[in-house]
Amino acid sequence: MAVDPNAVAKQFTDFYYQTFSSGRQNLGSLYREHSMLTFEGAPIQGDKAIVEKLVNLPFQKVQHKVTTIDAQPSSPTLASLLVSVTGLLLVDDSPNPLQFSQVFQLIPDGASYYVFNDIFRLNYA
Amino acid sequence: MAVDPNAVAKQFTDFYYQTFSSGRQNLGSLYREHSMLTFEGAPIQGDKAIVEKLVNLPFQKVQHKVTTIDAQPSSPTLASLLVSVTGLLLVDDSPNPLQFSQVFQLIPDGASYYVFNDIFRLNYA
Repeated sequence: MAVDPNAVAKQFTDFYYQTFSSGRQNLGSLYREHSMLTFEGAPIQGDKAIVEKLVNLPFQKVQHKVTTIDAQPSSPTLASLLVSVTGLLLVDDSPNPLQFSQVFQLIPDGASYYVFNDIFRLNYA
Repeated sequence: MAVDPNAVAKQFTDFYYQTFSSGRQNLGSLYREHSMLTFEGAPIQGDKAIVEKLVNLPFQKVQHKVTTIDAQPSSPTLASLLVSVTGLLLVDDSPNPLQFSQVFQLIPDGASYYVFNDIFRLNYA
């Protein structure tokens, strides 16, 4: 089974950021108990704690405009993937988009993937 | 043996970017035959091809000013690490720093690590 890392990465990020905008409380199914998020330097572990963190971010409306997506296989033995995203974040009614970078490691789980690693950073000029 | 991912990440990035500035032809020892670099969207595989790419980048002098470093274990079974870096790139005598993001996956190799994954992107506003 040949998987195209770029196709999986595009599909995953489309789903992830759409769900983030439409109802980020629903992102929990993408994480597991041993999943890790480092959000602006703060480490968080586990699906429940990660969703709590995301839900409590201090904005109501949020949109990620993805600029670049790069993907690579992350293991010689497993069909896991490293996905690196850069883009712009629009929050609430602010006219000023913020640059962000986000990295995911996706681990195969049946016909799908879950997020084992997630690192998010805003990029200030 | 408990490894502090943040300490390893700091040590690695210090060494990597110092070597990049002082003589990037010497970065080859950090990569292996199956290592991958995606540089501004272009995929390159193998230590020799990666170093050739880095050496032939169209600048003489380069300095990476690291702004943030985040690290996480990248495997439940192996002491591998995911390292995400954001910062500013100064090339030649340009007064305008460029924002960049770079992701590494480091795989243990004896007492040290090699780079299995490397994804580099400039971030344009």
